[in-house]
Amino acid sequence: MADQDAQSQVGSEPPALSVLRWDELPEGPAVVLLDQTRLPSEEVELVCADVPALVRAIQSLAVRGAPLLGIAGGYGVALAAARGDDVARAAELLGQARPTAVNLGYGARRVARAHGAAVGQGAGPGAASAVALAEARALHREDAEASGRMAQYGLRLLAELLPGSAHRLLTHCNTGALVSGGEGTAFAVALGAHREGRLGRLWVDETRPLLQGARLTAYEAARHGLPYSLLTDNAAGSLFAAGEVDAVLIGADRIAADGSVANKVGSYPLAVLAKYHHVPFVVVAPTTTIDLDTVDGASIVVEQRSALEVTEITSPQIISAGSGGFRPAAAPVGAKAYNPAFDITPPELVTAIVTEEGVISPVTGVGLAELCARSSQVTIS
Amino acid sequence: MADQDAQSQVGSEPPALSVLRWDELPEGPAVVLLDQTRLPSEEVELVCADVPALVRAIQSLAVRGAPLLGIAGGYGVALAAARGDDVARAAELLGQARPTAVNLGYGARRVARAHGAAVGQGAGPGAASAVALAEARALHREDAEASGRMAQYGLRLLAELLPGSAHRLLTHCNTGALVSGGEGTAFAVALGAHREGRLGRLWVDETRPLLQGARLTAYEAARHGLPYSLLTDNAAGSLFAAGEVDAVLIGADRIAADGSVANKVGSYPLAVLAKYHHVPFVVVAPTTTIDLDTVDGASIVVEQRSALEVTEITSPQIISAGSGGFRPAAAPVGAKAYNPAFDITPPELVTAIVTEEGVISPVTGVGLAELCARSSQVTIS
Repeated sequence: MADQDAQSQVGSEPPALSVLRWDELPEGPAVVLLDQTRLPSEEVELVCADVPALVRAIQSLAVRGAPLLGIAGGYGVALAAARGDDVARAAELLGQARPTAVNLGYGARRVARAHGAAVGQGAGPGAASAVALAEARALHREDAEASGRMAQYGLRLLAELLPGSAHRLLTHCNTGALVSGGEGTAFAVALGAHREGRLGRLWVDETRPLLQGARLTAYEAARHGLPYSLLTDNAAGSLFAAGEVDAVLIGADRIAADGSVANKVGSYPLAVLAKYHHVPFVVVAPTTTIDLDTVDGASIVVEQRSALEVTEITSPQIISAGSGGFRPAAAPVGAKAYNPAFDITPPELVTAIVTEEGVISPVTGVGLAELCARSSQVTIS
Repeated sequence: MADQDAQSQVGSEPPALSVLRWDELPEGPAVVLLDQTRLPSEEVELVCADVPALVRAIQSLAVRGAPLLGIAGGYGVALAAARGDDVARAAELLGQARPTAVNLGYGARRVARAHGAAVGQGAGPGAASAVALAEARALHREDAEASGRMAQYGLRLLAELLPGSAHRLLTHCNTGALVSGGEGTAFAVALGAHREGRLGRLWVDETRPLLQGARLTAYEAARHGLPYSLLTDNAAGSLFAAGEVDAVLIGADRIAADGSVANKVGSYPLAVLAKYHHVPFVVVAPTTTIDLDTVDGASIVVEQRSALEVTEITSPQIISAGSGGFRPAAAPVGAKAYNPAFDITPPELVTAIVTEEGVISPVTGVGLAELCARSSQVTIS
């Protein structure tokens, strides 16, 4: 099967990606993002000087991925505080920018609460703004540390679950440094396996409609020299049937109190395939993704996105003398589409949830509640 | 959910598509094809004046779909005969143009055999060539008739399997008039349900990598005014989970003697989802698709296609002020891909196989063999 063997040696590490940072520009403070809609062709930064600009960046997916959205929400509130804008309103706008990822509202609320506490204790605007920025930076740092701990717990779990030392892991969407203050969630586990010489292959689902796997995970895998192969989401079934998948590793956008996992659309079909083929299905997510206020999967609001994401794709080049590189539009003019951004995987299909506080397996509401009780982070909601 | 309600009335029928025809042009005979790589943007005909041109058209998917490939193979041999080319060599070239669809070799061999018999009985080149063309036309006509009978059997099966009178059917790839001498296989059943006022919704998988669902099935559904919605292949799982799919209807490229079904990649994951959700999974294919010489699914050769079909897709337009309509390439330069064109669904996941000779359910080798014994067509192989 096609692979990237030429790149698969464990070698020198690439420089860390600057995915999201606070910057004090001459014209004022700003949240500076790596524009993920332009990857892998161009590494372009997007400067968000106010909350509406950041909300637009979130909605356009220039910045995306549950943990990183939490960090963006936090810095966004710090930005409102630094500009003297209405902090509570900023937290509300940011929290509502996308409905499914719980981390976004968590980050925004956490920083707004720190700011409010400072004001309540008599801090002036400048001091309160500094407190807000410090809180956003703490959230950023904590998320980076959580990545590292998730990778450790995840690697230990794989060693328990899987025989052999050349794991063939399948992943969906993008869960690496592009979604995190650190090296990510599910991808960080695969990267850790690669560093330990235990990654046989990373199967990368392209992840329609927005191709986060093809554009972003393949980009991160190539940067790190992982042995990876891209595939259409459709082709995963053939890999399972051929016994080519040892485990599925995905991230999460919200985990309900019963252990239901909202993640990028296409995760649920993988969970059903994994169950049918007796392959472990592992979710890797920080505790900030757990939302005990959402009782079950049916209560999770799934974002419906524009039909244009499905209908406007340009057809792939058909390799042919006859077609001469002509690229017709995909769907007929006026075609409408069903385009949910996420789907819900029920806990009975999830082998384990790996967090920075430990592993939950089997996945039950009691197990989640106990883990959350040990974690200080998720009590701030 | 998004749909095409404005178009969903059962109304006047559109003119039949001219998908493939024999033509006597001033410069000589030709097989004239509707170039399916240019749909839905343009309806352009491709003139194949010799067998190599037709082989290129088959390999580039300008002409595709198992039953239509059989017809193309038949006319291709007739074309070789009319030009005075080597008929046996033409049948061999055509039969090898794509490995998975059994119909292609069937059509080519059948017409070559008729030609050979005429020659053996003393016919001259002109008379033998006329026999070959008549045999190709007979195959074309029989396939059109088979479409009609499959639709009737399929509709009767749906009435038995499904409660209610507004079936919500999910289909994959393209199985309509574009693959057939008639109105197709699985699509013909959905179209028949629409004409009887029994189609609640046709869910159309886009079918990556080459988007036959988005480009071709949506085109055919729109022409006939069907209530349809397009979706990424990934989103089918959410529809099953929401109870929005009453049955899956697909075609087939080869059915092995044990009832294993080779069809467009992505069919097998749908079969697993259908099983998990207790939804009927129905294969609609003419008996020419049944290959008793292939003993089981593992013996079916699955065509592996170029990685470029996966990596060269242009990223969908991200609806954003920020990205300004910029369309980056999908995968990083040098990314490789696993790109099987088909997958294999084992008989235990197939509720029924609908043919023009009747319905096989449960799907067993014995049932297939009995049906084939009743069919004169499949004895010619």
